[in-house]
Amino acid sequence: MNHYDTICAISTPVGTGAISVIRVCGDDAFNICDKIFISNNNVKISDFQTNTVHFGEIVDSKFSLKKIIDEVLLSLFVSPHSFTGENVVEISCHGSIFIQQEIVRLLVENGCRLAKPGEFTERAFLNGKMDLSQAEAVADLIASQSAAAHKMALNQIRGGFSSELKKLRLQLLDFVSLVELELDFSQEDIEFVDRTKLLELTKDIELKISKLANSFQTGNAIKNGIPVALVGDTNVGKSTLLNLLLNEERAIVSEIHGTTRDVIEDCINIQGITFRFIDTAGIRKTTNKVENLGIERSFEQIEKASIVLWLVDGTNVSEHIEWLTEMIFERAKEKKIILIFNKIDKLSEGELEILEHLFSPFDCEKIKISAKKRLNTELLQKVLLQTAQIEQIFQNDVIVSNIRHYQALNNAQIAICRVIDGLKSNISKEFIAQDIRQCMHYLGEITGEISTSEILENIFSKFCIGK
Amino acid sequence: MNHYDTICAISTPVGTGAISVIRVCGDDAFNICDKIFISNNNVKISDFQTNTVHFGEIVDSKFSLKKIIDEVLLSLFVSPHSFTGENVVEISCHGSIFIQQEIVRLLVENGCRLAKPGEFTERAFLNGKMDLSQAEAVADLIASQSAAAHKMALNQIRGGFSSELKKLRLQLLDFVSLVELELDFSQEDIEFVDRTKLLELTKDIELKISKLANSFQTGNAIKNGIPVALVGDTNVGKSTLLNLLLNEERAIVSEIHGTTRDVIEDCINIQGITFRFIDTAGIRKTTNKVENLGIERSFEQIEKASIVLWLVDGTNVSEHIEWLTEMIFERAKEKKIILIFNKIDKLSEGELEILEHLFSPFDCEKIKISAKKRLNTELLQKVLLQTAQIEQIFQNDVIVSNIRHYQALNNAQIAICRVIDGLKSNISKEFIAQDIRQCMHYLGEITGEISTSEILENIFSKFCIGK
Repeated sequence: MNHYDTICAISTPVGTGAISVIRVCGDDAFNICDKIFISNNNVKISDFQTNTVHFGEIVDSKFSLKKIIDEVLLSLFVSPHSFTGENVVEISCHGSIFIQQEIVRLLVENGCRLAKPGEFTERAFLNGKMDLSQAEAVADLIASQSAAAHKMALNQIRGGFSSELKKLRLQLLDFVSLVELELDFSQEDIEFVDRTKLLELTKDIELKISKLANSFQTGNAIKNGIPVALVGDTNVGKSTLLNLLLNEERAIVSEIHGTTRDVIEDCINIQGITFRFIDTAGIRKTTNKVENLGIERSFEQIEKASIVLWLVDGTNVSEHIEWLTEMIFERAKEKKIILIFNKIDKLSEGELEILEHLFSPFDCEKIKISAKKRLNTELLQKVLLQTAQIEQIFQNDVIVSNIRHYQALNNAQIAICRVIDGLKSNISKEFIAQDIRQCMHYLGEITGEISTSEILENIFSKFCIGK
Repeated sequence: MNHYDTICAISTPVGTGAISVIRVCGDDAFNICDKIFISNNNVKISDFQTNTVHFGEIVDSKFSLKKIIDEVLLSLFVSPHSFTGENVVEISCHGSIFIQQEIVRLLVENGCRLAKPGEFTERAFLNGKMDLSQAEAVADLIASQSAAAHKMALNQIRGGFSSELKKLRLQLLDFVSLVELELDFSQEDIEFVDRTKLLELTKDIELKISKLANSFQTGNAIKNGIPVALVGDTNVGKSTLLNLLLNEERAIVSEIHGTTRDVIEDCINIQGITFRFIDTAGIRKTTNKVENLGIERSFEQIEKASIVLWLVDGTNVSEHIEWLTEMIFERAKEKKIILIFNKIDKLSEGELEILEHLFSPFDCEKIKISAKKRLNTELLQKVLLQTAQIEQIFQNDVIVSNIRHYQALNNAQIAICRVIDGLKSNISKEFIAQDIRQCMHYLGEITGEISTSEILENIFSKFCIGK
């Protein structure tokens, strides 16, 4: 266990509520809290058992007459039985901002330091309570807004990813030990391991690393939402459709809690997957100029999307629509395009047939809807989900969602590929050992076995205060 | 102990934070939580000791494969060792809105009901853990934004007011018992008590009740802030002065917590007392019409204030200024007026003398400031505080801040005055006994010894959910 100064922070969300929790952590946590807390049976905090809760008063003893700040519940966790591994006190006070500030002020006056963002979790990492990837998942868990993002972060906290990495590092360690042993006996030119077997093992490791790295696409989409561009001319029903999708979702999420609106602004949540709508300027009908500014700007926005919803007003197909559609298909080749015919409630069977014929050259998913009459919007959701190609993730699936991890995995993969090449071309053992060590180094960066204070600072500064 | 169904609510402020607390209360609290909580040593909640904290997982067992929602700390309080007196569980989870919602959903699916606003505190009252005035103080405490409001609410929670009322009711009870005993022996015409002594006692009680009722003015000002109207023509520096006062305060309160701005909008806090600024339309210079609309509107606003700051630009005294000042002094007779000369940094000694002479007929506090140069703004704060005439309140002072209590005290006072009159005019004992009972009834309304479900509903509906 390391030793650090004692820190404190308000750990519950900012604002006024029924109760708020202030967390104190460090060697002096009990001593400091003893100076401001009087339990109702006058027992000292250090005499309490770990994991117990006590009623009492927070008092400011600066004055001759003790000033009572609040009546609180105080929980204590004796090292190592706490989140951070250190002595921890949690003060559960009345949720007034004034009281929260007063208690923090008292703690600071009596020797605490205000915690930096993520400092509690950082200590949990530094004290070996969790590895770095688990610590990072704590922030992801708190930020998670969809079932899938939540499940992914929770898996990571629970160490699924860590144990995969541990297994890989152990395999690599065995491997490099053998190679280095051979190096010690290099003059005798002994081979302890069969080269063919080694190659197989290395290929297996490479496969696992590449599988993890490949999961980043899914992980990133789940974590940050799948970017969707909804494009179309004005009056084709873009905003009606968007509102329809957003409102249906809002109704669901606001059932229990009324105030999540700002969080899900312009995001919809289909079966636990978040779709993030990118604001695009309308694709305008052009009259004379082939390349106009509006289209260019829209294409810049489309660049950020992975799915493009191309919305066409079925009742008012402009003369340029074929050309525009062609443009989209050409310029957004890499994107998944869904062609949506809106306002179909106003079309006859014959008109629908003409429409279908007109767009038959374009090979993509096509849906006919009426945003106004709410026709086929459920189908649209289903198609969106299919198009996103997010595999359903299960309780124990390991999915990489952190770009830092992804980069480290890529680097590890490059190193392990060099090992494979080296084995094939029978290069010197020194180089092979070096490449294996390199691969281990990158994997170790993920779990924090190898880390610099700079990396740590960068990671934890993105946390909220109090975590 | 009464028996009610089991309720749950998120008790921490709404939003995302490091941790959030969900409170469960009622007979079935342990059974319900056992269905969704697996402690890390597999012990049932009902087997835990009261006031202990346990690490474990919240799981959704609806699926064949148990779905883990979060890793949490669960505290339990076995009846009667809880805030409400009932079995209580507090689940401290990761502060993501998604997780909070999921846990509440699980609790509801397993038999909890969503708590109504203030329902936990209502149960504490119904179970005799606190009286009604204490319960009401819980809401006041949470809403308190200044040191004085906080101290007042805390005193009330701690039962200072309640014990005063209890003493009064006991005195009245002794009193009425004697009178009613005399009634039983009415035919013998016995007097157990000396009428002069009775009158003294009654006058003493009346004095105490009236003292409590009179404290309401202070209490109300502390609780809701002292309404201040800052009036003056445009360009006299109104907004500069207001921003100066607000910003200085904001700097202080935002030292620890960065996001309280919306709470203290247009309020300043001087030595723990809140001053609430009322938005007034400017008092316009009139050119031809004596009564113009602008002035009328300002006077309507001034009606709501108890202090009027009349701001005059010292460098630009209009020809109508004397007349306007006269108007204010006449129309705002009941208000405390502070005359402020702004921009004094731009005035010579001589000009200052002329200004003073011009306003010498007006008898009120006068201050010379420069809002821009920050001259004398501290003095202004001091004068504001003096003018507010809020007596400093001490730890054990009993101050009434609740209009319901104030009304009940007024009614009690009317009844006790009738007793005094009755004793003086020697009216029938029946009437005296009736008036004493009436007085006791009104005092009992405050503490909730006498209450209707309608009164309770009205009180607790103003609480926040989770309290």
